[in-house]
Amino acid sequence: MKAVIISVGTELLLGDVVDTNAAFLSRELALLGISVYTRVTVGDNVQRLTDAFTAALQSADLVIATGGLGPTEDDLTREAAAACFGVDLRCDDVLLEDLKNIFARHGSKMTDNNIKQSYLPDGAVSLKNPNGTAPGVYMEKDRKMLALLPGPPRECEPMFADFLRPILEQKQDATIVSETLKMTGIGESAMETLVRDLLDSTNPTVAPYAGNSEVHLRVTARAASKPEALAMNAPVKREIYTRLSEYIYGESDASLEEAVVSLLKRKGLTLAVAESCTGGLLAGRITAVPGCSEVFNESFVTYSNEAKIERINVPRGIIETHGAVSYQCAEAMAAGVAKTTGASAGLAITGIAGPGGGTQDKPIGLVYIGIWIEGKCDVIEMRWSGSRERIRQRAVAKGLEVLWRKLKA
Amino acid sequence: MKAVIISVGTELLLGDVVDTNAAFLSRELALLGISVYTRVTVGDNVQRLTDAFTAALQSADLVIATGGLGPTEDDLTREAAAACFGVDLRCDDVLLEDLKNIFARHGSKMTDNNIKQSYLPDGAVSLKNPNGTAPGVYMEKDRKMLALLPGPPRECEPMFADFLRPILEQKQDATIVSETLKMTGIGESAMETLVRDLLDSTNPTVAPYAGNSEVHLRVTARAASKPEALAMNAPVKREIYTRLSEYIYGESDASLEEAVVSLLKRKGLTLAVAESCTGGLLAGRITAVPGCSEVFNESFVTYSNEAKIERINVPRGIIETHGAVSYQCAEAMAAGVAKTTGASAGLAITGIAGPGGGTQDKPIGLVYIGIWIEGKCDVIEMRWSGSRERIRQRAVAKGLEVLWRKLKA
Repeated sequence: MKAVIISVGTELLLGDVVDTNAAFLSRELALLGISVYTRVTVGDNVQRLTDAFTAALQSADLVIATGGLGPTEDDLTREAAAACFGVDLRCDDVLLEDLKNIFARHGSKMTDNNIKQSYLPDGAVSLKNPNGTAPGVYMEKDRKMLALLPGPPRECEPMFADFLRPILEQKQDATIVSETLKMTGIGESAMETLVRDLLDSTNPTVAPYAGNSEVHLRVTARAASKPEALAMNAPVKREIYTRLSEYIYGESDASLEEAVVSLLKRKGLTLAVAESCTGGLLAGRITAVPGCSEVFNESFVTYSNEAKIERINVPRGIIETHGAVSYQCAEAMAAGVAKTTGASAGLAITGIAGPGGGTQDKPIGLVYIGIWIEGKCDVIEMRWSGSRERIRQRAVAKGLEVLWRKLKA
Repeated sequence: MKAVIISVGTELLLGDVVDTNAAFLSRELALLGISVYTRVTVGDNVQRLTDAFTAALQSADLVIATGGLGPTEDDLTREAAAACFGVDLRCDDVLLEDLKNIFARHGSKMTDNNIKQSYLPDGAVSLKNPNGTAPGVYMEKDRKMLALLPGPPRECEPMFADFLRPILEQKQDATIVSETLKMTGIGESAMETLVRDLLDSTNPTVAPYAGNSEVHLRVTARAASKPEALAMNAPVKREIYTRLSEYIYGESDASLEEAVVSLLKRKGLTLAVAESCTGGLLAGRITAVPGCSEVFNESFVTYSNEAKIERINVPRGIIETHGAVSYQCAEAMAAGVAKTTGASAGLAITGIAGPGGGTQDKPIGLVYIGIWIEGKCDVIEMRWSGSRERIRQRAVAKGLEVLWRKLKA
């Protein structure tokens, strides 16, 4: 099956909004085995829209449009779809009732222009919108399918997933199940090298993703039912675990900080953190995990030398002899923060994030990460390049990775 | 002048990448007064690409394509452009020399497939790429313009700004100057209400943006020269300052944390922070500012009650009587962190970020922010809704806003 995606909206052509719907739908259609032939963006003009629909339906079996379903004058997607199919628009009593209920629930007055959201092209079915006022539209003619979805991603994405995807799955005669294996401590190309043979498989497919100092592998099976799809994913997942288990911290919705917090819980450990160049960002990620208070009581941003000495007992001599950005200081910070707070694990980060402060010996991007667990301390040295923000983010990700690896061992 | 933007790449049609180039170019062309007629996304197929170029050049004066200029087999944009103009591709000696130099500088071996990046369609000029290996291409024929830019945004965006925009400005006989006024502590609709009359002006234009708990107004003039454009912006900016000065913290590249750090410097104050629910994220934003060490020495993440009591001397009785999420605790934290560290200003955040921990009296989203400056303390209470992450981010933004407002007074 071939598809065309049409994104509707003058705000897109003005660049006021980045079109994430097109990427979302592309990804979802790929998962369904439907290939996207082209994507087109059109402004709020009924003639151009009708032309775009007509052209798209000539080259594709399925056309999905997003945007232009709202109540205002420049919302014209419904009109264009009806014109393209040569049918009339008619007010649907059930949709009108739904709409009135939404406004009543919010206690706001429904203005007349809203009524057009309850109009449907003759022969079309509506798609529910639990997240907004504009229902979607699905229509078929001469084996061609046309779907209209709302523009806001928080309305478009669930409407696709809950109401349009099931229709398409039926056409494709298949259910799709995706499972993502998330990794840390390995780069995208190194990971690809280890699974290159798997990337060529077609069902399940295996697709790599990279970003935010992590890499993911998404395993996706198409089958007649969800249990069958899961059963098809299973051996491929097992194979990936065999090759990459030392890097996989979790699946699907998991985050690295969640993996760290749950390992701390499982081992009965508590964590304290001392941050210099990352200035609180690593603690910020740990505390993003609900329930982290069971294993995390406190941390320090020891930005100045005096703070390192006074708050977490870094010996002044270490800073005077080796400097605050040194193997020795990271070690003293990690041990010091754990001992000061009585935590069983201490994590410390000290480095030069730039843009100033670099020297020949200690260039921008030099970062030491110390990790102390129940009396044993390790320090790693990293040398990165990039902006201040990039170096800080990498240091946070590396700190979590090192901690995860130690706890897992 | 009418334009069509063509985004090239099968990875786009698979949804592996969100197309930010199209939004960037749309915005930039709008600023130049060039209207984007449509945008099209095409896969890596030379025939479809050639067809897309041909169709676009029929309906527009200017066609800009992004992507498909790299060294691999599926990089075919150059070939399609040459075919569409009916000219040959030829190796350009200067580009080849540049390419060899890039590889030599990086100490890596140049494989043969890279050579195609030094090919140019006959009659075209190349656009420099300081951020990658693939140069851009600009060509004209029968008053139609075709430009090819690389796909990676960090290559595409500067190439447009530095090399293609000047060509287009010349065609448009204009220079564009945008200046952004950044605000905090006012919502988008409240801000719009105060400047609605200005939003209708055409040169300079005034456009609102909202995001990350901030609102911006962008003032953009088109004129024959930069000084003329700045002179046209000036009275509009003055008018905006007159109406909104109490919210404007900076212009263009400024960030709220930079504004805070520079006010602290100007007033000769130092800041210490105590965070509970935000867990280090506010300190993370302060330390994002290079040179913040002049005014920021340290901060505490006092997540547990004991940490609040032990590290920053919150009286145990306050927590027992009023709880850790209370007006009184925020006040004691702000004063306590300043006094403990000897800082002249103390900022404290304590709240319930959820998803658990809420009660009828103290629901999820209840946050207290305390601010102590040289002996005087204020506390504000906020009640938000949303996810844990959203509440934490809003608390950080509000903390910075409150601090900025106090320091400015």
